[in-house]
Amino acid sequence: MEKFLVEISARHIHLTQETVELLFGAGHQLTPIKDLSQPGQFACEEKLTIVGPKGELTARILGPARGYNQVEVSLTEARQLGLEALIRESSDIEGTKGCKLVGPKGEIELEKGLIAAKRHVHMTPADAANYGVTNGEIVNVKVESEDRTLVFGDTVIRVSDKSALAMHIDTDEANAVGIKGSGLGEIIKL
Amino acid sequence: MEKFLVEISARHIHLTQETVELLFGAGHQLTPIKDLSQPGQFACEEKLTIVGPKGELTARILGPARGYNQVEVSLTEARQLGLEALIRESSDIEGTKGCKLVGPKGEIELEKGLIAAKRHVHMTPADAANYGVTNGEIVNVKVESEDRTLVFGDTVIRVSDKSALAMHIDTDEANAVGIKGSGLGEIIKL
Repeated sequence: MEKFLVEISARHIHLTQETVELLFGAGHQLTPIKDLSQPGQFACEEKLTIVGPKGELTARILGPARGYNQVEVSLTEARQLGLEALIRESSDIEGTKGCKLVGPKGEIELEKGLIAAKRHVHMTPADAANYGVTNGEIVNVKVESEDRTLVFGDTVIRVSDKSALAMHIDTDEANAVGIKGSGLGEIIKL
Repeated sequence: MEKFLVEISARHIHLTQETVELLFGAGHQLTPIKDLSQPGQFACEEKLTIVGPKGELTARILGPARGYNQVEVSLTEARQLGLEALIRESSDIEGTKGCKLVGPKGEIELEKGLIAAKRHVHMTPADAANYGVTNGEIVNVKVESEDRTLVFGDTVIRVSDKSALAMHIDTDEANAVGIKGSGLGEIIKL
């Protein structure tokens, strides 16, 4: 089966337009600086400080604005902040902990939305048919590297017309498999 | 096959007695505060600051003193320090980069010895016979967790009379598999 791109998601933040304006000033619009692999998604010039009881980290905002605020960190980073990040799929933030975000024009204490992203593979319906998988299915993905080849279990298939084929892992996962920049993945049976 | 303990190695430092004295004063002896799973190994009261161009981290010394200086960090931590840690087995430090260590009575610029530990399973010859593996063999170890089950490839079997059965992974690897404290591993074929 054809291998697919494995991309590393560094810590980042999604905000509602209301929160953007609270932190950057009334009427502020996010400033795209780089398109991401998923169509329509972009990295923004804007950054915020995530504040926890044990530390602070700067994180970039990804646009466009969404219907919810969500802060995605690695579990290493959550520990550095002194905060608990549950492993969740994006947007599934009910019951998660929050954190404080500080911007140039204001700050906000989020009541929820701090997560470590559950690893996943974005793909189109055509890709899903090609790989014989369905939306929400849990698969195992083998990623090879020189020193730390491994198989990621508990990987969610996320199918959307608006997706491009790519697996997303966080920085802890990227370091555990020893890849920098990107890698290649393959769905396997265990 | 019987599962075995998977332990998480946080960043730590091994020193020669000469370096201990350079950093803590002439005649200083390491102070054991906790025995580790491997017989004769112990965590020490003494800590040092690892200094890199991008940051600093405090790390505990593990005793007893060895024949070489070695600093073991996760790849996440190496990035935070702004240093390069190669993935190596313990003691295999030729060709690795170094780092600066600062103690209460002195500091040293190591020319080599900064590594991210290659994941491994310590076991006795009897354990090796039981699992049907040999010293130096590379195996795959499945570790299950609620959200992030995975299979660690590139895992080295290390057989010694002086060992106790335990797999050692670093904090990035522990976070990638979503375990805290410890887990259970199982050698599998892929």
